[in-house]
Amino acid sequence: MHERDFISWIRRQEQLDPKAFPLGPGDDCAIAKLGGEDLLVTCDQVLDGVHFRLAEHGAEAVGRKAMARALSDVAAMAAVPVAAVATVALPRGFTRQDAEALYRGRRSVSDVTNCPVIGGDLGVWDGPLAISMTVFARRAGVTGGVEPVLRSGARPGQAVCLTGRLGGSWRGRRHLEFLPRLAEGVALAMNYRVRAMIDISDGLATDLRHLCEASGLGAEIVAADVPIHNDARIGLNPADSAAALRRALTDGEDYELLFTLPSAWARKLVERQPLPVPVTRVGRIVKARGITLIHPDGRREELADAGWEHRTDG
Amino acid sequence: MHERDFISWIRRQEQLDPKAFPLGPGDDCAIAKLGGEDLLVTCDQVLDGVHFRLAEHGAEAVGRKAMARALSDVAAMAAVPVAAVATVALPRGFTRQDAEALYRGRRSVSDVTNCPVIGGDLGVWDGPLAISMTVFARRAGVTGGVEPVLRSGARPGQAVCLTGRLGGSWRGRRHLEFLPRLAEGVALAMNYRVRAMIDISDGLATDLRHLCEASGLGAEIVAADVPIHNDARIGLNPADSAAALRRALTDGEDYELLFTLPSAWARKLVERQPLPVPVTRVGRIVKARGITLIHPDGRREELADAGWEHRTDG
Repeated sequence: MHERDFISWIRRQEQLDPKAFPLGPGDDCAIAKLGGEDLLVTCDQVLDGVHFRLAEHGAEAVGRKAMARALSDVAAMAAVPVAAVATVALPRGFTRQDAEALYRGRRSVSDVTNCPVIGGDLGVWDGPLAISMTVFARRAGVTGGVEPVLRSGARPGQAVCLTGRLGGSWRGRRHLEFLPRLAEGVALAMNYRVRAMIDISDGLATDLRHLCEASGLGAEIVAADVPIHNDARIGLNPADSAAALRRALTDGEDYELLFTLPSAWARKLVERQPLPVPVTRVGRIVKARGITLIHPDGRREELADAGWEHRTDG
Repeated sequence: MHERDFISWIRRQEQLDPKAFPLGPGDDCAIAKLGGEDLLVTCDQVLDGVHFRLAEHGAEAVGRKAMARALSDVAAMAAVPVAAVATVALPRGFTRQDAEALYRGRRSVSDVTNCPVIGGDLGVWDGPLAISMTVFARRAGVTGGVEPVLRSGARPGQAVCLTGRLGGSWRGRRHLEFLPRLAEGVALAMNYRVRAMIDISDGLATDLRHLCEASGLGAEIVAADVPIHNDARIGLNPADSAAALRRALTDGEDYELLFTLPSAWARKLVERQPLPVPVTRVGRIVKARGITLIHPDGRREELADAGWEHRTDG
């Protein structure tokens, strides 16, 4: 089964009332109207063997990641988390000590992001550890004046920028230790006219494709401008910059923000560097669909649609 | 590990701001204030081998149950569902046909309860099928005037009533086919001064204990008044009414509403039978802690705290 085809099929089955639900599935959060306010909702699961390896990473890191990953989707909307609820399926034999470590990890992220878990469901089963986290959020700004930033707001000519450095997240344990870019997302939306945003979970190439597809457009990435994390070079020959670039483009789990904004604002942003994390311009939005990588010698490479798609038997 | 001890431990770690979160974990839903309204939230997981058996029950029934179970918690608050989000962990080899059946089952419950799924996360892993469903809801009534009904509102002397008939839910597939008692919950709260309510998922004895513990009280159940479902007699000698009663008290997965209300209102309710499902008075709230079963010969039996607790190694 192709997951993506199935998800597309599901979306074709559903018709939501746009007044009650201004934004349905397909962005980082969905939006429902409640009491005149925007209620943003995202849910995300972390599964042993897919998003972590319990035996290797330990329960505390897993609890941390479960909470941080869901909050990264809130950051990508430039919204403010309100609270979360969680379900946890514990493998039989999970110890009390591990359960407390799981809690501590989750709680440490709740504390720094001001996002308590207000409800949940805990069960024991014969399967591996699975955690599902749902986060509720609201508009940023004292009076809620900051519009949520969707994936669909990109326009031709806008700059493509991102926070931080990419690649090697699993090699360096960053995928377990990152903090969601919540304040950064809000600052970008409030002060730099960010028009489209997504968090980088599947890799720059794939997530930029998601953003561009939601906007009906394409993008060019300047290879020399992609900020490569030191973790992306782990185990590589230092001269092999092509391999490090490839990792930065496709490894994923960076949980950085990828966004578009008018070119003049991107210049100010990159010059001022107002965030605690570096911001880099890596390319621009174009009309032609697809993601093109521009090499230093001017060669243009179409990036194939890889990475995200998993295939199951049957 | 004792799950219940661990959950108690978690609750001692958390302090929520009661202005932002009027109701934290421990009831059927949590409540957060958003835009001046009550936002009710519940989440619930269904796991292969615990809440269903995929090979035996089929994907459509599983999708149905996942949605209906979470909505049963909304019914128990006398609230109105707004929307849901879901995560689904599919076992490798899950077919497209099964995935569509899972969707159809979920969707059939969404359609009759007016609760669309507006977001989600679908993944494939080496574990069994696991579905986590989060439902958010709002107050009932045209102007939201119906206060959510908590577990903690019971008072000594109130009658204990319930909807439907109990026992044998797994034997008769009712646990897969029930519809959450949403309209019934609202009608009871609006018209019959219901003061405390819970849905029966763990069995009458255990869920009445949960309600009484939240209220700091106890209850007496009149054995002869417990409405026994025909499914509870499947495979039993017809003369063995004690075994059928035991099933009605402890089987669980009935997804009926169990509630308390002033005695005079209970009389009106039982006499009028205003709901599409029968309502029965089964006992009363008392000051002394614990759940006591009163047999036809006057014998009083303390019901032990069984059923809910699972124990894991370690």
